[in-house]
Amino acid sequence: MKAGEPVLEFRLIERIRELTAQPRDDVRLGIGDDAALLAVPAGKELAVAIDTLVEGVHFPRGTAAADIGWKALAVNLSDLAAMGASPAWALLALTLPTADPAFVEGFAAGFAQLAQPHRLALVGGDTTRGPLCISVAVHGFVPPGKALTRAGASVGDAVLVTGTLGDAAAGLNALQQPRRDDDPHARARDFLIARLNRPLPRLAAGTALRAQASACIDISDGLLADLGHICHASGVGAEIDAALLPRSPALLQLHDDATALHFALSGGDDYELCFSVPTHRLADVQADLARLGCGVTRIGRIVEGSGVRVRGHDGAWLPTDRQGWEHFA
Amino acid sequence: MKAGEPVLEFRLIERIRELTAQPRDDVRLGIGDDAALLAVPAGKELAVAIDTLVEGVHFPRGTAAADIGWKALAVNLSDLAAMGASPAWALLALTLPTADPAFVEGFAAGFAQLAQPHRLALVGGDTTRGPLCISVAVHGFVPPGKALTRAGASVGDAVLVTGTLGDAAAGLNALQQPRRDDDPHARARDFLIARLNRPLPRLAAGTALRAQASACIDISDGLLADLGHICHASGVGAEIDAALLPRSPALLQLHDDATALHFALSGGDDYELCFSVPTHRLADVQADLARLGCGVTRIGRIVEGSGVRVRGHDGAWLPTDRQGWEHFA
Repeated sequence: MKAGEPVLEFRLIERIRELTAQPRDDVRLGIGDDAALLAVPAGKELAVAIDTLVEGVHFPRGTAAADIGWKALAVNLSDLAAMGASPAWALLALTLPTADPAFVEGFAAGFAQLAQPHRLALVGGDTTRGPLCISVAVHGFVPPGKALTRAGASVGDAVLVTGTLGDAAAGLNALQQPRRDDDPHARARDFLIARLNRPLPRLAAGTALRAQASACIDISDGLLADLGHICHASGVGAEIDAALLPRSPALLQLHDDATALHFALSGGDDYELCFSVPTHRLADVQADLARLGCGVTRIGRIVEGSGVRVRGHDGAWLPTDRQGWEHFA
Repeated sequence: MKAGEPVLEFRLIERIRELTAQPRDDVRLGIGDDAALLAVPAGKELAVAIDTLVEGVHFPRGTAAADIGWKALAVNLSDLAAMGASPAWALLALTLPTADPAFVEGFAAGFAQLAQPHRLALVGGDTTRGPLCISVAVHGFVPPGKALTRAGASVGDAVLVTGTLGDAAAGLNALQQPRRDDDPHARARDFLIARLNRPLPRLAAGTALRAQASACIDISDGLLADLGHICHASGVGAEIDAALLPRSPALLQLHDDATALHFALSGGDDYELCFSVPTHRLADVQADLARLGCGVTRIGRIVEGSGVRVRGHDGAWLPTDRQGWEHFA
């Protein structure tokens, strides 16, 4: 019944620190004391978020340790991306059933693989014994008053998304099917599973959108739910066209149109950005994201009212009463 | 398998936000978006820590929800106290097996009860389904270069502790005994259990020690282990006198001297401060803490070498091979 600092804590946190070590002169005191000491650069606001992954809820049992390490950081960096913030520091709280050195090494490697290119420093952590559960808190910088929020979408704005939608849900579906050696769709499945396990937070896109988008969110719960959050926070509604939703070749190879549409609308875990843009800035946004190599698709528009409506291929509104997924349904 | 924002998340986080609501103009955007936006005051460094509590590891099953909420914040504020930092903001990651409204209300009340007097604002959170587990990250301010650390203890410095030691370990012991209606020691037991469940982080003492102590740590793992961290970080050893260890009347009422000594040396969860002070500042420190109503006791001194030695009542060194407790023993 004690908080503590076990040997493993030192080893794991130290291992990730080694792997993510990089000079940041804003870290005055890193891992190893009761708290880290950090200096926010002058003229910057701090953007801060926390997210938890629980085994069997946010990733299937059997997920590789390196994938868990990557994803635990990715879902948090995605929150910074949605604010237009640049990542700086992370804290890690890892609860593990046993002191498994192979898990620790794999987790650290996956975490570090994503941290390194973003110059993200791990500045603190806590390791405890218990059911597998990971919380990461991330800190990023943004110029004062320039962050993207969910509020700010205006009637007439275009609604856009980065990348493709529904891949992660299809990846989870693929994991739940028995694997066959002679699977003709093996490459498509692998692509979709990688989209589930190794999401790429849209940080560069988020920064580029800071001066352009009127509202922004990352798609963690599914397009309908997350665009619904923008509508609620902005006091508007949205209409999207099913025919415009960007779907990957792999998704369409493995699923019929109705299933692919369901995944694209309601599947979570894609960690793409959904955002609104005044139409006069549309061309600039599309050019900016193209320069970054980030796919972007206009899928609808902001309207008066509330909630999200989806126009089907035949022009009729689809029934969309299920606006997302609840952990405690 | 999706990250999400369930109804309960909103309700719990919103409930704590309501209960802890207070104007802080350094919170530019609080709960409700992808990240909080925060402004660190000019001329301050940020102190940041994260700690996790797991049911059955850090608190016994059956602990009241309000006590869990209090303690989850207290153990983190204690880390800020040990750095001499003033608390400002917290993030909460709560994993719960079921959406139990009574638990949520109790947890929020306990968390808020400790947050409020410290003007601590909850700025973000994540609620997920899974085995009961709570991670809290706290943020505080400290003047640049003025934080207390574990390094800095010098040979000849006095070693002191706030409050009394061993109470929380005795409280856990009391919880594990069957409760009798005619228990003549009921008040002593209740005191010790409260010390376990409702630790008071020594924030005012930490701030007062900033200009005085050469090194500081909070006692979460037990005196031997935590003073050992100071010795390791400072490159010194420490000698303490068993006879000087401050022990509460309740502890001595329920346990013989040997057990009380064991709890005081190795019991964790007291969340008192252990610190070193150059002897010429000793009188000032004692006066400063007395003004705050914070008990303080000189228990030993910093010496050359490494590790912590304990002198017993007969003047001989006690065998102290067990330097603390490991979660993954």
